[in-house]
Amino acid sequence: MQKLKEIIAVFESNLPSITEQQGNPREVYEPISYILKLGGKRIRPAMTIAAFKLYQDQISDDIIKLAQAIEMFHNFTLMHDDIMDNSQLRRGQPTVHLKWDDATAILCGDLLQIEVYEKLTEIGNIEILSLFNKMARELCEGQMNDMMFESKKVVSNEEYLHMIRQKTAVLIGFSLQAGAILGGASNLESMKLYDLGISIGLSFQLMDDYLDSFGEKAKVGKKIGGDILNKKKTFLWNEMWANLDKKEIEALNHVFESSNDDKIIEFVKRKMQSTKADKKTLELAQDYTSNNHYILDRISNTGDKEYLKDIMTLLSKREN
Amino acid sequence: MQKLKEIIAVFESNLPSITEQQGNPREVYEPISYILKLGGKRIRPAMTIAAFKLYQDQISDDIIKLAQAIEMFHNFTLMHDDIMDNSQLRRGQPTVHLKWDDATAILCGDLLQIEVYEKLTEIGNIEILSLFNKMARELCEGQMNDMMFESKKVVSNEEYLHMIRQKTAVLIGFSLQAGAILGGASNLESMKLYDLGISIGLSFQLMDDYLDSFGEKAKVGKKIGGDILNKKKTFLWNEMWANLDKKEIEALNHVFESSNDDKIIEFVKRKMQSTKADKKTLELAQDYTSNNHYILDRISNTGDKEYLKDIMTLLSKREN
Repeated sequence: MQKLKEIIAVFESNLPSITEQQGNPREVYEPISYILKLGGKRIRPAMTIAAFKLYQDQISDDIIKLAQAIEMFHNFTLMHDDIMDNSQLRRGQPTVHLKWDDATAILCGDLLQIEVYEKLTEIGNIEILSLFNKMARELCEGQMNDMMFESKKVVSNEEYLHMIRQKTAVLIGFSLQAGAILGGASNLESMKLYDLGISIGLSFQLMDDYLDSFGEKAKVGKKIGGDILNKKKTFLWNEMWANLDKKEIEALNHVFESSNDDKIIEFVKRKMQSTKADKKTLELAQDYTSNNHYILDRISNTGDKEYLKDIMTLLSKREN
Repeated sequence: MQKLKEIIAVFESNLPSITEQQGNPREVYEPISYILKLGGKRIRPAMTIAAFKLYQDQISDDIIKLAQAIEMFHNFTLMHDDIMDNSQLRRGQPTVHLKWDDATAILCGDLLQIEVYEKLTEIGNIEILSLFNKMARELCEGQMNDMMFESKKVVSNEEYLHMIRQKTAVLIGFSLQAGAILGGASNLESMKLYDLGISIGLSFQLMDDYLDSFGEKAKVGKKIGGDILNKKKTFLWNEMWANLDKKEIEALNHVFESSNDDKIIEFVKRKMQSTKADKKTLELAQDYTSNNHYILDRISNTGDKEYLKDIMTLLSKREN
């Protein structure tokens, strides 16, 4: 993972320019600094730099700005999604709306979004701005679908995969595409990188869903089983649901009505295992991962492919 | 008001392009359509078109897009501010977070903000994008100051005027400046228009504060006295507060503790009148208004000044 470490180190060394802003009042800047400093894997900015590296040897100011814009945008979505989903923990720490309040999290998210556009405006590439807008719009549509799915009894796998494409994959697609454009890739190549990002995003989210139920709290940095308690209609849930008989569904409904959270989570996880929904989720994620390497092999590049390969390898083995 | 009517008619005739969008799911587009159709005075888009008209005779596609972006951005801030301030009514109708819920109002506001940037990106003028970002950042700072002032016992008039400059005036300044830039104004002229917008914005907000306490509910379209109940440290409140003696302050505190909303509002309004705070607020607004006409006279234009004059005259006489 040497190549990935190299990218992350460049990104982290530039972090103070977005976490130590001098504006006033301080109260509107501190939550932004807080969430950006919580860390996380920095996968999205790493990807955009890795895509740039496919075509350029030297890191430029613009690709750093793009990487920052992407990480800031990701954190903006987290700050607002955490209010909407009433999440308590983010990367093992209190969410912004819990540490401050809803109004602060709304407003600071809005400011963070504006700062994203400041970075993109400084880069000054209208094509990248257009692609970003398109992606951001899809992401909002995905978040609405995600929220609406919670009150639906059944969501098809097709609907679910469309939703995670919007909510997760398009941002990764944009990260690779925009990095390639800044690197000077042809239209065709940058579109291939978008497709690669979509495929990576889908495998990424399927793993995320798996880890939400079967990961370790210490590694994942949030409560395990949140999706189960919210009856989130993930691929994992759907594959279980489709393979339960009438008696098992009754038992499951009974557990949700009468048991505490830990018992509910334990029960559903056992059902996910007995129906092999857990394995099928991992298999589908693996399918996408194999596909990713196939796409990458066919991308024509003038620079170094190892950066992107490194990230893809990491993602295929991740535990958090 | 013929000239103003002409502008508003152009703006309204183009409204369907932003209210009748075809995206999915419908649930994320309906609240945006709802708030944009609530109406309002359309003063900001009218201003940007009027500034354009100072230099150009024919309305262009870009100035319509700019006017739409400005009105959409204004509505985005309303949608989110209404959650933060827990407002119930907007233009006589339920606010978005009340008609739907907080999560929907957060998400739809976010999408509306992205749509603003779509319009600005379509125009493709990096200078206008930069000025917009700067303005939007100041507006967020102003909203945070506004919220923080509510828990402060005393806010100086200087602090208050700075806050309303950020929260209201910079958007009007941007509207005039960006319209002039699109019209082809020189740097110097477009900066003069920014200053004019700031001055208009300050008189506008002072009138807004006045009408919040002394307007008529039917005309203003929201509950009268909201600022008083929130003890908002407006210029109007400050001028009253500074002229109350110790006994009157005690009486005022007592009213806030023991009375119902209507009695509190009635009591405070009487004090605003007996201390002449109401008149002083109107006088200061009038000072800015005179200043506005003085600035406008010194602006060099190649087109028609009457559009902007019309709007300024309307604002100086407004009752809502």
